[in-house]
Amino acid sequence: MSARALDAADELAGFRAEFVVEDSGLIYLDGNSLGRLPRRSIARLAALVEAEWGGRLIRGWGEGWMAAPQRVGGKLARLVGAEPDEVLVADSTSVNLFKLVVAALRARPERRTVVTDDLNFPSDLYVLQGVLDLLGGGRRLRVVRSPDGLAVPPDALAAAIDGDTALVALCHTAFKSSFVHDLAAVTDLAHRAGAWMLWDVSHSVGALPLALGAVGADLAVGCSYKYVNGGPGAPAFLYVRRDLQDRLVSPIWGWLGQRAPFEFEPTYAPAPGIQRFLAGTPPVLSLAAIEPAVDLLLEAGPERLRAKSVRQTEYLIGRWEAELAPLGFALRSPRDPARRGSHVSLGHPEGWRINRALIEDMGVLGDFRQPDNIRFGIAPLYTTYGEIHEAVARLGRVVRDRLYEKYPPERLPIT
Amino acid sequence: MSARALDAADELAGFRAEFVVEDSGLIYLDGNSLGRLPRRSIARLAALVEAEWGGRLIRGWGEGWMAAPQRVGGKLARLVGAEPDEVLVADSTSVNLFKLVVAALRARPERRTVVTDDLNFPSDLYVLQGVLDLLGGGRRLRVVRSPDGLAVPPDALAAAIDGDTALVALCHTAFKSSFVHDLAAVTDLAHRAGAWMLWDVSHSVGALPLALGAVGADLAVGCSYKYVNGGPGAPAFLYVRRDLQDRLVSPIWGWLGQRAPFEFEPTYAPAPGIQRFLAGTPPVLSLAAIEPAVDLLLEAGPERLRAKSVRQTEYLIGRWEAELAPLGFALRSPRDPARRGSHVSLGHPEGWRINRALIEDMGVLGDFRQPDNIRFGIAPLYTTYGEIHEAVARLGRVVRDRLYEKYPPERLPIT
Repeated sequence: MSARALDAADELAGFRAEFVVEDSGLIYLDGNSLGRLPRRSIARLAALVEAEWGGRLIRGWGEGWMAAPQRVGGKLARLVGAEPDEVLVADSTSVNLFKLVVAALRARPERRTVVTDDLNFPSDLYVLQGVLDLLGGGRRLRVVRSPDGLAVPPDALAAAIDGDTALVALCHTAFKSSFVHDLAAVTDLAHRAGAWMLWDVSHSVGALPLALGAVGADLAVGCSYKYVNGGPGAPAFLYVRRDLQDRLVSPIWGWLGQRAPFEFEPTYAPAPGIQRFLAGTPPVLSLAAIEPAVDLLLEAGPERLRAKSVRQTEYLIGRWEAELAPLGFALRSPRDPARRGSHVSLGHPEGWRINRALIEDMGVLGDFRQPDNIRFGIAPLYTTYGEIHEAVARLGRVVRDRLYEKYPPERLPIT
Repeated sequence: MSARALDAADELAGFRAEFVVEDSGLIYLDGNSLGRLPRRSIARLAALVEAEWGGRLIRGWGEGWMAAPQRVGGKLARLVGAEPDEVLVADSTSVNLFKLVVAALRARPERRTVVTDDLNFPSDLYVLQGVLDLLGGGRRLRVVRSPDGLAVPPDALAAAIDGDTALVALCHTAFKSSFVHDLAAVTDLAHRAGAWMLWDVSHSVGALPLALGAVGADLAVGCSYKYVNGGPGAPAFLYVRRDLQDRLVSPIWGWLGQRAPFEFEPTYAPAPGIQRFLAGTPPVLSLAAIEPAVDLLLEAGPERLRAKSVRQTEYLIGRWEAELAPLGFALRSPRDPARRGSHVSLGHPEGWRINRALIEDMGVLGDFRQPDNIRFGIAPLYTTYGEIHEAVARLGRVVRDRLYEKYPPERLPIT
């Protein structure tokens, strides 16, 4: 079927009109890094700024702001397969990971190993390294290596998890290759060894349905500015399985995690339930933009989003096979759609310069990841088959016509 | 002089027009808790959302977002008397306090005591308690008591600081009484004992000039949604004296504090300088609103703001003496303006109900702090003498006419 016919048959096609799409012809395939702006978020933010901050002032805290971390968390819970009182919006992904990992390791000092893999997002590896440096006590990080940089087989994980493993901490979808761990099977591996399972679902949520509750995941963190479309640097979220909540204490004894923040008691006592994982005052403007974006995802439904995402990555891989493989592009994402997230990585020795030409000359915005990967993110709420078709065509043109050669091979700093 | 004459003579009076002030007759004296909305911030946020997020998408990171923590920090530095490369906007005040206190205590394990006082904001006490619980090693918190709940005399602090003191951590302006520590003298007390000095300037910045650099303060944190007018839950800031920056390591090894965030190296190495105190991705919308607000404060100038604030709190205390003291109100803030911040606390046995009536029936929005304090915050950028005069008159009416008696004595939860 042609891209046009596929778009015409797409039951989610109407959601694209919910987003700001400028008439510049830009093909945006980086919604896995920063999602597009939902039109509803413009109205929500304007109301928040002018009517609430400007008009209600301090009263805004009692009229919705203070409840926002739980309210929006309760909606995000439906995207990750959790109960509403198991998810909270707060801080950044890194800070949330820090809080949960410290809390988990301190709750079970008899186990000293944290298991992860080398497909994990470097920022998560940094946080894990920092926690182990902080807590000491002979704790160590065991990093399971991917044999091909593409996937980590379950048996490699199984071999690394043992009776000393306190926590298995993994990205559900790998940021580079798009490899997706088997949520249920890996959680089960951890549990069979008595370890707790922490999932970073940053590169999954909003594109892949997640069943954190059904698989019995213990902890999770995630980002809300990628497929969730919550806006640049939108606050992250965290999940703690209900029966663990009162056994864990965040290391950051913040006032909003206190049992009675407005009593101003001199001594900290953690709130019951998920609230104890709050720290300081939430950035209300950034938090507010998440809610209409989550509403859109819930209207589309995680299962329909996943079905479209799979169809679109399959379509992209089909186009790669026909047009790009002959030009020297390697597929750096799994072929099996069950093991693939919603972005596709294509490797090419001239990847850096090709991506530069794609952005500067071709109006195609994907991104580049070391050493030579061009990533195309499919955001099923707004990406069209037509965009994928055209992006592949332009990518082919850049290589065939050697349009990348005018760019220096050195990479420039991003900031 | 009459309030009208004082307003007419006020050289900063023009700044009120820079803020959204609704025509409802509301008297807002809670800018020490949440500052008013600057008109410029409306335009800045609209541009950020529609033109930058909507139009530039991921490119926004290279076009100003990524540099915002340092850029806005550099401006805030001028409000606190620091160098531009000593201040950073990031996270919440609690998370920043956590990062700096853990870093400081780990850098000098031979000293085991943290000294603070009981006028400190409870949220800061919680964070300090949590850090000591986390680090262990015999570390302890020494809380200097205020004899009257109003002020902590320097000799009480001097007696508590000794050769075992790693850190003295204090709020510069006390949230309840408005007592202001002597920045230079207390920093000197700490330094003479070989301790480091950390100031929380949340209740000072934007109303009182600060000279963190001149007094040699080691560390500081502060809030940007009070007198700074950065918006609800706006990200906080932190200060680290330049020569200490490379000796300290944040316990949260976040990717934006890494030396090369976009290299995606597998192992964390802290960036040089202040950047290492960044953790995760900043909430760009909330961060952006701070900048026009700081610009306004810089245009007014910290010295002029302080001069007006002192005149206005003096005026308020004069009105208290004439009208409110006879009605049973006690002044719970220092009489000496040099030791008083920009809010004034008035105690009354019926404080809770009186404040309730003031809000519900009188259109005066201050706030209440346990056990019986009504706080009136003076934000010299936009508070008028006329408002202070009228607020006192209405407060007197509530008590004289017993308007508070219709409210139940129990307090309701804020959320």
